[in-house]
Amino acid sequence: MFVRNCWYVIAWDHEVPADALFTRTVLGEAILLYRTADGTITALRDRCCHRLAPLSKGRKEGDCVRCGYHGLLFDATGRCIEIPGAETVPAKARVQRYPVTVKNKWVFVWMGDPARADLALLPDNFSCDSPEWDYVPGYMHYETPQPLICDNLLDFSHLSYVHEKTLGGSTAIAQARAEIEAVPRGIRVTRKVHDVPPPPYYRAVRELAGNLDRWFIYDFVLPGTLLMHSGGRPIADAEGDMRRAVRLHSCQTVTPETETATHYFFQQSRRVEEGDHAIAEALYQSLLVAFEEDRAMITAQSRAIEADPAAPMMLLAMDAAVVRFRKLVAETVAAERVAATPSPIQPARDARSIA
Amino acid sequence: MFVRNCWYVIAWDHEVPADALFTRTVLGEAILLYRTADGTITALRDRCCHRLAPLSKGRKEGDCVRCGYHGLLFDATGRCIEIPGAETVPAKARVQRYPVTVKNKWVFVWMGDPARADLALLPDNFSCDSPEWDYVPGYMHYETPQPLICDNLLDFSHLSYVHEKTLGGSTAIAQARAEIEAVPRGIRVTRKVHDVPPPPYYRAVRELAGNLDRWFIYDFVLPGTLLMHSGGRPIADAEGDMRRAVRLHSCQTVTPETETATHYFFQQSRRVEEGDHAIAEALYQSLLVAFEEDRAMITAQSRAIEADPAAPMMLLAMDAAVVRFRKLVAETVAAERVAATPSPIQPARDARSIA
Amino acid sequence: MFVRNCWYVIAWDHEVPADALFTRTVLGEAILLYRTADGTITALRDRCCHRLAPLSKGRKEGDCVRCGYHGLLFDATGRCIEIPGAETVPAKARVQRYPVTVKNKWVFVWMGDPARADLALLPDNFSCDSPEWDYVPGYMHYETPQPLICDNLLDFSHLSYVHEKTLGGSTAIAQARAEIEAVPRGIRVTRKVHDVPPPPYYRAVRELAGNLDRWFIYDFVLPGTLLMHSGGRPIADAEGDMRRAVRLHSCQTVTPETETATHYFFQQSRRVEEGDHAIAEALYQSLLVAFEEDRAMITAQSRAIEADPAAPMMLLAMDAAVVRFRKLVAETVAAERVAATPSPIQPARDARSIA
Repeated sequence: MFVRNCWYVIAWDHEVPADALFTRTVLGEAILLYRTADGTITALRDRCCHRLAPLSKGRKEGDCVRCGYHGLLFDATGRCIEIPGAETVPAKARVQRYPVTVKNKWVFVWMGDPARADLALLPDNFSCDSPEWDYVPGYMHYETPQPLICDNLLDFSHLSYVHEKTLGGSTAIAQARAEIEAVPRGIRVTRKVHDVPPPPYYRAVRELAGNLDRWFIYDFVLPGTLLMHSGGRPIADAEGDMRRAVRLHSCQTVTPETETATHYFFQQSRRVEEGDHAIAEALYQSLLVAFEEDRAMITAQSRAIEADPAAPMMLLAMDAAVVRFRKLVAETVAAERVAATPSPIQPARDARSIA
Repeated sequence: MFVRNCWYVIAWDHEVPADALFTRTVLGEAILLYRTADGTITALRDRCCHRLAPLSKGRKEGDCVRCGYHGLLFDATGRCIEIPGAETVPAKARVQRYPVTVKNKWVFVWMGDPARADLALLPDNFSCDSPEWDYVPGYMHYETPQPLICDNLLDFSHLSYVHEKTLGGSTAIAQARAEIEAVPRGIRVTRKVHDVPPPPYYRAVRELAGNLDRWFIYDFVLPGTLLMHSGGRPIADAEGDMRRAVRLHSCQTVTPETETATHYFFQQSRRVEEGDHAIAEALYQSLLVAFEEDRAMITAQSRAIEADPAAPMMLLAMDAAVVRFRKLVAETVAAERVAATPSPIQPARDARSIA
Repeated sequence: MFVRNCWYVIAWDHEVPADALFTRTVLGEAILLYRTADGTITALRDRCCHRLAPLSKGRKEGDCVRCGYHGLLFDATGRCIEIPGAETVPAKARVQRYPVTVKNKWVFVWMGDPARADLALLPDNFSCDSPEWDYVPGYMHYETPQPLICDNLLDFSHLSYVHEKTLGGSTAIAQARAEIEAVPRGIRVTRKVHDVPPPPYYRAVRELAGNLDRWFIYDFVLPGTLLMHSGGRPIADAEGDMRRAVRLHSCQTVTPETETATHYFFQQSRRVEEGDHAIAEALYQSLLVAFEEDRAMITAQSRAIEADPAAPMMLLAMDAAVVRFRKLVAETVAAERVAATPSPIQPARDARSIA
């Protein structure tokens, strides 16, 4: 059960080619992306309305896409405008179009009622496209349900154990208490850790001699997006003094491919004034190692759950953010269902109607 | 749901060795084929009646087959004639025998009531064994349901798109209107295309300078067999003048392995008087490329359907033959069910009884 | 449906390392094994009670195991003794502990009610740890249900066919009549075969010129353990004269990994006074070949059953031991269920409660 009235990241902007078709599945629906002549991305259901062949097996013709099976031609709104051998095209011959937008290099699709697609609901992934921040874009595929990855991102106590030799470096992270507060469509988690050794991956950014005070401050918002300021500062330095600090900003989001598989888009940005792009490359390589650590653990956890789906988790104090976010998702899904229930007098609009 | 009172092609004649066991699954039933001393093929359920081990894991002993697990010996009628360590063999110790026949190099098994097996229902696959026709026999395996492949063969408009660079070569094929008429247990489809460039694969047969008139005339009969005359003639030549024409005959049939996988047997024959066997080899190689194009498209379509089995197809004018054949299958399956329903007075015979 | 109040072999003693974690699944439950400082093996559910990650992805710390996800620390009884960041540990924070014991190099876990774990129910696998017997320990994994492997071991008539060129060597084995008698929690099968050629694998033990009298005398006990004396003696020699005989003892046991996969632990021992360890190595290599023959046949049988689960087996005289053992399993499972049914007055204890 996933929230539908939501923007989901379907791709990095650079993944969608200038003159070819791109397909990726979101919430179990294969979605075709391509660019019209002005570079704008269109998002259509990747399934011909005729015999259900994927349109991505066809070809782009100008601003249209032609099905590679029997040649139906669809325009960028999803309307069929040509059926080979037929003189007219039925009005119902069309494929679903999804609201789509690009913000700061992330391509978002709206998976719910198109009439409710609202750009104000986009997350503030500013560091993905800022002259002040520098990064290498990342993508991973998980063969696990998306909520398990949200859980992981909502509880950084795992840094001390999963990432002991990469992002963590101290059990003090797990021992620190995280502050949680509400933000629109999500929560803010603040975790500060005092007087700890620099984590191994900071070496990619700069040499650090002594212990640090570290901070992780992030919003985690629907449908599963983390927006985080983090960093570390020599303990001798004053709180506002960033001259010897490591300062990072990270944007990460997890998009369900299906009920059991997930797309993971991520970046960890460094300040441009602190060195050249090689630092961003080194950070990215460290992050890949760490995110493989996560994927190995979450995949093992997921297999254990599959083997015995009724096994209960035992939620602890450290799970406060997990519990709050799961509750938010459940309430949002429930509210969408209520809204989608037809009233006895006025029939509800078809939730699958075309944009 | 498949028609059962029907001959299904299980193998090419040359696939069944002279003195060894051969197994292939049809309609979900593993079937053992082997030849008795006179070369006749016998077809038995490939499953020992004792503990269900495949007989094909055993060995041929004269005209019998011995189970490789505990040594039960079955004769060519499926009767058990020896149980090691037992003095007598129970009469019920036998495996199902299927009516089997060979016609023009195709080995057919009858999957329904043996009492109704009727050689008159075999298709006229004459070019598979004719001094006038020459071909290379083909086989492919599909991981898709059989009806999707029937759909493909019933609508040649796909030649313009799936086979643009192989069998097609012109969008005029899709634009041409196919004539459909009834034949016993199937339909006849006639498609004529005027003044089009020769399709790329005709080069295997002969050099053709200008445009052609092309024709495709085929019967498509239960359970999924295509028998087709096709060809192309320079537009300047009179309709009966075949001197510069390409003339082909093709026999193709799709046999369900299970509900979700299919055997595809095919050949495309050329006239022997028009050149040597190298032409048939070249045609076969072209056909393999084209049939891979089909398999890639149909497999993609099948995966899209699996992901959302309730999605409706939107049938168009081009689907007239598809619709008529699907209706014929549905009616035939329904009629078999009615016939199999026991009357209140006289119990029906066991549909699975042994031949 | 498996018997639960039973010792199942989970590993060979040498498989559990001195200072690391070992995991294997039994009856669908992943079980963590490790050794405490004194070498004793502890067996815990390999699943953290917190978010269900496998503890085997964590690490051993002294006599404890720390979860690699969020750092919970469990002692060798399964009790959680540390939750990072929490001052207290809830009493219910623990993982299931299984009774575990080692006897003659086999590590056994008790999968039922811990209060009923009874060392007297361990099988007499004496040759696994005896100065008089020498062997190489074996392990195979089957992708088939465990009962099909029990069936195989309960009916040695298959030696004549599956193992014609390895363990068998004569159809007389299948023709011999097996005597069956009851033993505690199982049956005893005695099969004697007169005046047959030595089986090919006896060559590993000694050169034998003429025919032999062979014997196979084994107990087959719950949950699926074979304990067998077997051998062969030149027909000219008197029954008690072992000077030119081959004498073997074998311990084999099949442990369900899940409903559809199985662990197979085995050894075939030779008398130490009859030669050096190279003989045991040669016997082991022969056995591997033969057990691959079994696995191929049982896997093929299992696939045939999966394709048509309702197909009935036709039990014959040779299946007497199969039928008796299957009946014993069914009765034992049924009796466990009756015992587990809560009475209307006194609620039954939780079958999944912690040891």
